[in-house]
Amino acid sequence: MARSKQKEKQIIDRIKEGRSRSETTDELAQLILSGNRSALARAITLIESTQEADLSKADALMRILLPHSGNSFRVGISGVPGAGKSTFIESFGLSMIQAGKKVAVLAVDPSSETGKGSILGDKTRMNELASNSNAFIRPSPSSGALGGVARKTREAIFLCESAGYDLILIETVGVGQSETAVHSMVDFFVLIALAGAGDELQGIKRGIMEMADLVVMNKADGDNLPRAKAARMDVQRALHFFPELPSGWIPEVTLASSLERTGLDAIADSMNRYQHHCKTNGYFDLHRKEQSRWWLKETIQHALVDLFFAQENIQTELAQREEQIIAQQQSVSEAARYLIDLFKGTGINPK
Amino acid sequence: MARSKQKEKQIIDRIKEGRSRSETTDELAQLILSGNRSALARAITLIESTQEADLSKADALMRILLPHSGNSFRVGISGVPGAGKSTFIESFGLSMIQAGKKVAVLAVDPSSETGKGSILGDKTRMNELASNSNAFIRPSPSSGALGGVARKTREAIFLCESAGYDLILIETVGVGQSETAVHSMVDFFVLIALAGAGDELQGIKRGIMEMADLVVMNKADGDNLPRAKAARMDVQRALHFFPELPSGWIPEVTLASSLERTGLDAIADSMNRYQHHCKTNGYFDLHRKEQSRWWLKETIQHALVDLFFAQENIQTELAQREEQIIAQQQSVSEAARYLIDLFKGTGINPK
Repeated sequence: MARSKQKEKQIIDRIKEGRSRSETTDELAQLILSGNRSALARAITLIESTQEADLSKADALMRILLPHSGNSFRVGISGVPGAGKSTFIESFGLSMIQAGKKVAVLAVDPSSETGKGSILGDKTRMNELASNSNAFIRPSPSSGALGGVARKTREAIFLCESAGYDLILIETVGVGQSETAVHSMVDFFVLIALAGAGDELQGIKRGIMEMADLVVMNKADGDNLPRAKAARMDVQRALHFFPELPSGWIPEVTLASSLERTGLDAIADSMNRYQHHCKTNGYFDLHRKEQSRWWLKETIQHALVDLFFAQENIQTELAQREEQIIAQQQSVSEAARYLIDLFKGTGINPK
Repeated sequence: MARSKQKEKQIIDRIKEGRSRSETTDELAQLILSGNRSALARAITLIESTQEADLSKADALMRILLPHSGNSFRVGISGVPGAGKSTFIESFGLSMIQAGKKVAVLAVDPSSETGKGSILGDKTRMNELASNSNAFIRPSPSSGALGGVARKTREAIFLCESAGYDLILIETVGVGQSETAVHSMVDFFVLIALAGAGDELQGIKRGIMEMADLVVMNKADGDNLPRAKAARMDVQRALHFFPELPSGWIPEVTLASSLERTGLDAIADSMNRYQHHCKTNGYFDLHRKEQSRWWLKETIQHALVDLFFAQENIQTELAQREEQIIAQQQSVSEAARYLIDLFKGTGINPK
């Protein structure tokens, strides 16, 4: 550790002295391994870049750092806007830092644009956590389709792990698709719910409830406590209607208050028991391998579809065929076969 | 109608007399339009064929018949094995025929193999319906991946419609993926559930409950009636935890007994109200157009992935890259980019 600190200093000094105009990939990797947060931030910017020149640098960096990744607990956090995700992440993150963890917070929000109030876009919402030296907070990549945004976030997880962060929290907006993407990169999925007046769980999108390993009834404080307790029972009953999770874990429901900072220990406890459960039955490693295979297939599939639809002649024909299908003049099979044949004939020459 | 019957007779006579060795595509189409069931069966066999020579014949047939398709109500029927789907379909189908409908029953069961007890494989399970002249029953295509099986079934729907069937029931096994495929080809989705001892809804796969427009608590008869009533309330309560359907329809739960043939009118009534609701708010047509677009995209995507993985050099490299990813030696991004570049270089030359 002392050696790596020394090395970090050497690299920083060298850069400051202007002996090298910019750090090499190897130097950047060394800084990250020594836990340097601004190097980590630069590395994430690098892997988020779509510039041709950055791609091979990013590949090289990942090759150095990947062997150092994997040693964290990856937690997805979802919930409708207003459920108090940010406040929850701040309280929970701080309590985990007190317990000795290094906490990184990432986000997947494909709709986000800088300055448009995206999740984590405004770090001031997590003031106390952001200023803690054992925390690292990074907003969602600000542009691109969900698949790309999520893939970058997944690689940011590996970077954070190689920088020594052992609890990674990935926040997501409660809008369905991004949940699926986040679910496929985490070990544990938390849904932050809110006990309101009667229809407390309205607004939670289809399919999200059944991904949850843990449902946190948030804002369980003051006048709201009885409602939160009732909602907890409702959710527990509802969870019976969801079949067993592939991990064999039985989802739990806890109460929490970010305001009073209560219920956080129960959440940490649930996560610990989950890890024990899944490491004992072998699901933990198996699941991560499955996730890697899934992401490879998913990434290839998206790239193929992009390649296909980038062909100009395909674009023109596609619109026409779609019209014909809707007008009941041609079958989907025929149209698809025609377009694929056209694609084969292009000799693939993406812009 | 008299004219088309006459034409049908002419065609059949011509074939019998040996003047033409086999019917032309146009003749086959005319027979189907006149409601000839064996012609319909032959046409479905044709569109299920993967023989190169049959593809253009199938395309030509679909081009003639598609303009005559669309005039039916398409209903997906799901439920765990043992829930009594076949018996339900027989009772319900017969009651709808009594009400003046022509009923076609199709199936999506990607795991089915002839003679292995697949759904609908054994027509004797629907003896009475099968022998009714206003019913047409067709088992699932017996081989192929889900996407292909489902696409063929979707095209079989159009053929049945052009033969005058105005209620199409599509049975599916309760195993998740095939439900999604069936859901994307029907107007209305029914889940057949069973009130058992305590954990009555166990076994219903993730995501299926929330697709349902109607949940039928089956075998609500004799000693089982109180349990069915209790389960109905449980399901109604659980449905509150699912957000609104895109159609704006509020899912219903009814009791039924195929044995006593009760509850069938309420189901028909629910379907009628659903149609009224969705035709009034415009969802019905919009949804069908969306389904067509979805199937085109889905079909292209599958064809691209098939094309990709059919390349021999890709197969070899893929296995190696997957190993490297799992061993944390390479990122998914790098591996995917490498494989796509390899694909571009092949000049695409599928087997």
